[in-house]
Amino acid sequence: MVATRASGTNAVRYGTMKDVVLALEVVTASGDIIRTGTRAKKSAAGYDLTRLMIGSEGTLGIVTEVTLKLFGISESIGSGLFHFTTIEDACQAVMLTIQMCLPIARIELLDAMQIKACNQYANLTLTETPTLFVEFHGTEAGVREQAQTFANIIEEFGGTDFVWDTNEAERKRLWQARHNAYHASSALRPEASALSTDACVPISRLAECVTATARDVEESGMIGPIVGHVGDGNFHVLLLVDTNNPEEVATADGIISRLAMRAIDMDGTCTGEHGIGQGKQKYMDQEHGNAIAIMQAIKTALDPKNILNPGKIWPQPLAVTAE
Amino acid sequence: MVATRASGTNAVRYGTMKDVVLALEVVTASGDIIRTGTRAKKSAAGYDLTRLMIGSEGTLGIVTEVTLKLFGISESIGSGLFHFTTIEDACQAVMLTIQMCLPIARIELLDAMQIKACNQYANLTLTETPTLFVEFHGTEAGVREQAQTFANIIEEFGGTDFVWDTNEAERKRLWQARHNAYHASSALRPEASALSTDACVPISRLAECVTATARDVEESGMIGPIVGHVGDGNFHVLLLVDTNNPEEVATADGIISRLAMRAIDMDGTCTGEHGIGQGKQKYMDQEHGNAIAIMQAIKTALDPKNILNPGKIWPQPLAVTAE
Repeated sequence: MVATRASGTNAVRYGTMKDVVLALEVVTASGDIIRTGTRAKKSAAGYDLTRLMIGSEGTLGIVTEVTLKLFGISESIGSGLFHFTTIEDACQAVMLTIQMCLPIARIELLDAMQIKACNQYANLTLTETPTLFVEFHGTEAGVREQAQTFANIIEEFGGTDFVWDTNEAERKRLWQARHNAYHASSALRPEASALSTDACVPISRLAECVTATARDVEESGMIGPIVGHVGDGNFHVLLLVDTNNPEEVATADGIISRLAMRAIDMDGTCTGEHGIGQGKQKYMDQEHGNAIAIMQAIKTALDPKNILNPGKIWPQPLAVTAE
Repeated sequence: MVATRASGTNAVRYGTMKDVVLALEVVTASGDIIRTGTRAKKSAAGYDLTRLMIGSEGTLGIVTEVTLKLFGISESIGSGLFHFTTIEDACQAVMLTIQMCLPIARIELLDAMQIKACNQYANLTLTETPTLFVEFHGTEAGVREQAQTFANIIEEFGGTDFVWDTNEAERKRLWQARHNAYHASSALRPEASALSTDACVPISRLAECVTATARDVEESGMIGPIVGHVGDGNFHVLLLVDTNNPEEVATADGIISRLAMRAIDMDGTCTGEHGIGQGKQKYMDQEHGNAIAIMQAIKTALDPKNILNPGKIWPQPLAVTAE
């Protein structure tokens, strides 16, 4: 049995991190060690502290143990990748796949610049256009059938060069480019710092959001490859920035800020995985409105002395706006 | 598209209620209307108020709107039911099904007394032994394949009389007995009150917990059919009690209490769906230990005047043990 990489590439089929964590051991602000949840799949006994703690970035307690749901390794696994003319076509194919409820295990987008980076990094010869990496889990017949349905979908959007394999070594080779994405991108401009940002939107807005973001990056003249866990409507932009150049930093900030607002305007979130930290505190009001007061009341109640990761999620000192 | 009956029978494939709710509109204790979450599938922006509110029984806010994930209706749906000699065999079949990760959409257990009740209620002729009702969702070939795998599993545990259909009318007829379960049980003793309780345990402890509970009910001499959303490790006992008879009430309380403690001892929960309300407050300490202080701190912070469903989950007046 394996735990799924839930918050990343495998989230479509197996759920996000919040779906696969059953319980936590947490050290609270008072130094008590509590246990949130049990090994039961569901509970209606009191408040869900497990999911409150997940994503709280250490501001409500320190997680010292995690109990995960496990999933068996599928009888058969099929991997494939294929190319599109535009990033919009690739995203439209993802949207139809998800809306048809095809039980795809992974579906990852790499834009043309990211593919170029992967080619340079690992001496590959992938076609340098927007590319989807996919994986199907199931029985042998089930995987074949899913792949066929998926092939029909991508045909509608002009997808080409469908490569497909169920052999483990070959699958790993296909995915290697995806797994190298971060380092490959960084190598595009080794002297720069890699500034990674992410956002998540409803699936129906994915093509629009990714396309607008790619255009924004292009128009800025920055190097910023896009990689997306697109089955969740979640994607990342890795901006390669010379942090000693104030103009570049300002350009990067503009891209990040416009992406956050674009996602929020689409009824999405300014971060699907990375968190608020310090850099995204300025979008909290816009995204959550007056729900902020409830969050801050919880922070104040659970950490009255603000000793748990102070300055993260909330400004330092904590501006208490609790009721 | 349909929203799944997530907290009940369809939870195995589509997740529990907490997995399918994206966002809520909530009225807080101060009278503010907040929105928790967006339409994005995941977010790392601040605290997860959505899942904190779900299951809080109105003690942290009043939910006035729910945004749900939707799932398409499957191309093919297959339903079946079959009988076992013992409730332990039926549960062992469930455990193997879940542990094999067969993507079953529903798997429901009705014990012999419940089947008897259904027969009497709707003039059916089902074999009066522990019975599993199942449903598979997928493509035509996928559903056939799942059904075949499942047939192999139940054979191991002596399952018989496998009835199987993909025709909608016939499927509905098969499931009718399950859907009538509550009323059918009540009709076993119309003058009594139906006292429903539930618990949820890790799948690996399901057979042990259900078997011990069934034995406890039998030894008590009470009428208490068992119906389970067993794919989640969750099951219900419907005790038919003459509430004017203190001895019967005490017997029922004993069964409920022993079930709660049995589930907690198995690293499960004293309630998978029904909630704490008033009746299960006495198990909160046992299940949550010192995590109770964190829950109460949240209650006090969000509802300082204790005006939100006072007396539910927490004793009235609220014993403030917050840090």
